Amino acid sequence: MNADVFLVGSGQTRFGEWWDKSLPALIEEAVSAAITDAGITALDIDAIVIGNMIGQQISGQGQLGAMTSALLPHRPPALRVEAACASGSVAVHTACALLESKRAETVLVVGAEKMTDAENTAIASALMGAGDSERDAPAGLTFPGIFGLIASRYMHDYGLTREELSLVSSRHHEHAKANPYAQFRSSVSPESVSSSAPVADPLRLLDCSPISDGAAAIILSRTRKSPLRLAASQLATDALSLAERPTITSFAATRDAFCRACEEAEIDRKEIAHLELHDCFSIAALINLEDMQFADPGQGIGIYRDGLQEMSVNLSGGLKGCGHPVGATGVKQIRDLAKQLKASKQRFGAAHNFGGAGATCCVHILEHACEP
Amino acid sequence: MNADVFLVGSGQTRFGEWWDKSLPALIEEAVSAAITDAGITALDIDAIVIGNMIGQQISGQGQLGAMTSALLPHRPPALRVEAACASGSVAVHTACALLESKRAETVLVVGAEKMTDAENTAIASALMGAGDSERDAPAGLTFPGIFGLIASRYMHDYGLTREELSLVSSRHHEHAKANPYAQFRSSVSPESVSSSAPVADPLRLLDCSPISDGAAAIILSRTRKSPLRLAASQLATDALSLAERPTITSFAATRDAFCRACEEAEIDRKEIAHLELHDCFSIAALINLEDMQFADPGQGIGIYRDGLQEMSVNLSGGLKGCGHPVGATGVKQIRDLAKQLKASKQRFGAAHNFGGAGATCCVHILEHACEP
Repeated sequence: MNADVFLVGSGQTRFGEWWDKSLPALIEEAVSAAITDAGITALDIDAIVIGNMIGQQISGQGQLGAMTSALLPHRPPALRVEAACASGSVAVHTACALLESKRAETVLVVGAEKMTDAENTAIASALMGAGDSERDAPAGLTFPGIFGLIASRYMHDYGLTREELSLVSSRHHEHAKANPYAQFRSSVSPESVSSSAPVADPLRLLDCSPISDGAAAIILSRTRKSPLRLAASQLATDALSLAERPTITSFAATRDAFCRACEEAEIDRKEIAHLELHDCFSIAALINLEDMQFADPGQGIGIYRDGLQEMSVNLSGGLKGCGHPVGATGVKQIRDLAKQLKASKQRFGAAHNFGGAGATCCVHILEHACEP
Repeated sequence: MNADVFLVGSGQTRFGEWWDKSLPALIEEAVSAAITDAGITALDIDAIVIGNMIGQQISGQGQLGAMTSALLPHRPPALRVEAACASGSVAVHTACALLESKRAETVLVVGAEKMTDAENTAIASALMGAGDSERDAPAGLTFPGIFGLIASRYMHDYGLTREELSLVSSRHHEHAKANPYAQFRSSVSPESVSSSAPVADPLRLLDCSPISDGAAAIILSRTRKSPLRLAASQLATDALSLAERPTITSFAATRDAFCRACEEAEIDRKEIAHLELHDCFSIAALINLEDMQFADPGQGIGIYRDGLQEMSVNLSGGLKGCGHPVGATGVKQIRDLAKQLKASKQRFGAAHNFGGAGATCCVHILEHACEP
């Protein structure tokens, strides 16, 4: 980081199906909660960045920067960023640049998505905007289809079984039980994952993060101190189309962003106590753990089978347990890390958020100034 | 500016109806032209910001940051920003923050829009995403409707006649004749504006900027010098809904952004030799000139009727003459200013770009180090 950037407050809606709340209403709820949590007034905010993917298509609402700014009495400068499911973390990254550039002292970062107001086909089509519209979409691929291909190849290459893969969602659901903001708060056995409805072979319904409504907000500041500071913010990209990648069982953008984030924070990956990673589909969790070198290629499942003493993975419940209002997830991950670090009195947490099948990846490392 | 940010190159497609070019193809053409113009290699670019409004809805293509990054061999970090018709200038603003923050040395900024592939109703609906989806859209308003209301009120308040208003588009078309990248390059008489088809009373077809395809790209750098540097980059917002504004014949975000930009550049508005302003509809040009205090309220038409010796207005042809591929306009304006300042050997030019009915406004001031 090129300046000290502190996390001074956060808030969110519970993720879920909010039939009675519009996209603007979700945003307002999260923003109010974050301002209250930070103990500041709205007037202390001098810039806003919002991450959102499908608000224009599904809610007919673009220009969300101006819309969010109008919630505050003094209408600070505001903009929206989009990088598919990484929109939230890319909003955080953009806010870091605004702070480091000295264009702002205190920035409100919002992630929000309203997804349950539309037919599933409309949502699947809108989400496919994260893929390659000229190569992959015309082939009939949707994102479950893309991750089904990835899972098939991974199982073929590494011998992962259907029963093993089911451990991933089951574990994330178990974690979500303790999170009052999670969409799903009940146990899901590995057997019920394996026997849930087929979606895109070999993936089943309970391998897939759900369609969700929700918003999260964090407040970052250069001038207001807190025990939590960002130690790294790194953004990386990869080809949109699966057809243009040398392999589909490894995500280059995850490798790049995570490696650079550890360098920026000047830490070894072993120092990370809590990891929130992007488990849009169960198979993605395994590959991401491998690309972050917490496991060898093909061995990610060991972390779910044998446990990992030194680091929690998706203690919030992840995308599977918490729900995945796409633009909100990357902001919510950082809020969750803050809660986890405070509770465990550990020093480092990492948030890994990607777009589509990893064409954009943004990794943040949060450092907690623990009591000596 | 919190660092020296130089404009080292630019490129664009001609704006127009490009039935044979997709959104990615338009982007690639502009990016290639800008890299060539800058005399750098693609590898010199270490970040990308792209401004686009409706690519997800109309071309099914989101995550345009990653898509654009994949055009370059080393896939630099990339993100998309959206602020409706101000998406291009907000991309430039974001790039400034990335440069000033020292996160990047040389940034490629792209603005692009593909609009002619869809029915007019689909485009009108997508563009209305720039308005307030809960207040103004349900009333049946489209953007021609919104600016029709604004024009009606303005004519009522200030006595502007239909014949006077027609001078605006006529003048912009006259300027566009000299611009090889303009969509329209023929004269349009004030009489033909007045007698063109009614669109939203009192606005006629030739009061409205067209639906266009196009892309523009500029390359900004901290480390590569050029005689052109950004002297200011300012972003401001206003309420989305007309119903939430104290007046509809003045744009608060234009006032705020322009006033702050002059302060940042430490210049008086009278030092601006060339102004590219957002004339999405003819009436907007007049109001923006007044909000930038180049004319008193209600007197903007004087600049078109009597001429203005000291400053050119939309010498490129503006949105009316050049076409308005929405995300591209804000980037193209800065490219045009650079060409104008080099040709005239003048020192300062300003680019004014807004979203929707001015809910987001971004103003850049470009300084040309003239030969002594």
